[in-house]
Amino acid sequence: MNLLLLEEADFIATDRAVLRDRRLTHMQEVHRCEVGDSMRVGRIGGLMGSAEVLRLDAGEAELRVTLDQPPPAKLPLTLVLALPRPKMLRRVFQTVAAMGVPRVVLVNSYRVEKSFWQTPFLEPEAIREQLILGLEQARDSVLPEVVIEKRFKPFVEDRLPAITDGTLGLVGHPGNYPPCPRALSEPVTLAIGPEGGWIPYEIDLLGKSGLQPVQLGERILRVETAVTALLARLF
Amino acid sequence: MNLLLLEEADFIATDRAVLRDRRLTHMQEVHRCEVGDSMRVGRIGGLMGSAEVLRLDAGEAELRVTLDQPPPAKLPLTLVLALPRPKMLRRVFQTVAAMGVPRVVLVNSYRVEKSFWQTPFLEPEAIREQLILGLEQARDSVLPEVVIEKRFKPFVEDRLPAITDGTLGLVGHPGNYPPCPRALSEPVTLAIGPEGGWIPYEIDLLGKSGLQPVQLGERILRVETAVTALLARLF
Repeated sequence: MNLLLLEEADFIATDRAVLRDRRLTHMQEVHRCEVGDSMRVGRIGGLMGSAEVLRLDAGEAELRVTLDQPPPAKLPLTLVLALPRPKMLRRVFQTVAAMGVPRVVLVNSYRVEKSFWQTPFLEPEAIREQLILGLEQARDSVLPEVVIEKRFKPFVEDRLPAITDGTLGLVGHPGNYPPCPRALSEPVTLAIGPEGGWIPYEIDLLGKSGLQPVQLGERILRVETAVTALLARLF
Repeated sequence: MNLLLLEEADFIATDRAVLRDRRLTHMQEVHRCEVGDSMRVGRIGGLMGSAEVLRLDAGEAELRVTLDQPPPAKLPLTLVLALPRPKMLRRVFQTVAAMGVPRVVLVNSYRVEKSFWQTPFLEPEAIREQLILGLEQARDSVLPEVVIEKRFKPFVEDRLPAITDGTLGLVGHPGNYPPCPRALSEPVTLAIGPEGGWIPYEIDLLGKSGLQPVQLGERILRVETAVTALLARLF
């Protein structure tokens, strides 16, 4: 945790917050905070800054909060991601939040196992928990938007063109395609497939909605690694 | 598992191998192999190719193996990595193997907890197991070399200069440094710090051995994510 994120409900006055949960435990056990110490904090959806520990006991901490810095810029990106397997999904949420992705669309794909859609890790509170871990890691205070699209074709035909419009549309896909471009400053819509990749029908349909395949070399990467590698290369 | 890796001990003739362990289970339960099916295989430390299933029962599989393709190229890189926490270490081994890193040096650092050096995940067999998972994922047959250096100063002063010689020496480090370069083709020696980063003394000493700090932006990434992001950007 490189940034302590404060929720609306933590504030007892405009510059005062009280913590009682895992963040209190973390302050005590990892940071070994004492009264008078200062920490980096952010308000979820708002500014970042610092907090001074005014009071600290086993049950709660009271902080004086100064919020005066903007969070880091997000990437100019919409990430369209075939739903990963549940264990991977949690880490992917952390990774996209840490890397500064502002919007993730989770879509179905032929090679996504149907059971993946039943995972409790897709509950809004579970998603938020993982996103917050990523923001705390990277020092950002703004939650990415996560959209769930359980049907591939209606999403790609009806809603994807409006997302892709005015952006560079790319699909990360192994094969004989142009290499993934580097160091872009324009907005991008990037689709990343499931383990085993998109099927040709899906590549065709994504292409008709403005997303062209690009490749990262012959190595097949796990979804989480592919997300990081593609983003690090694109921006 | 995108590539089935064969050990020396699996071969019963130059073109025949018998499997009995988790790879057999994987063939049956994930790939649902049948006699006559063909699979991608590689010989550890050797060529890659395909195998035909000649015989398959609950206890073992016999394969006819044709090895005629070189493994993918490795990156021109030595990665010097402050020892990550054990849970992260396992994933980092998979990631570096998958990304094509040929040599990893695990070093101590002021911010590496002493207890991390006690982890069973540093046993040679445990390291090999994770590296193989990464090779199976990425389709590569050549294990990276892993060197363990428990003392920072003697390694950096006495052995690092010979590694760095003739390479571009870089340290991934947040701060007011030049951005990490992109799309290199020259050999690189890259050092990545622990959670919390290198301390100034370590940055100085690495600099004297030829490694200059570069940064990836203001977001603080987990070690595994930083490794992937730096490699994707450098090469």
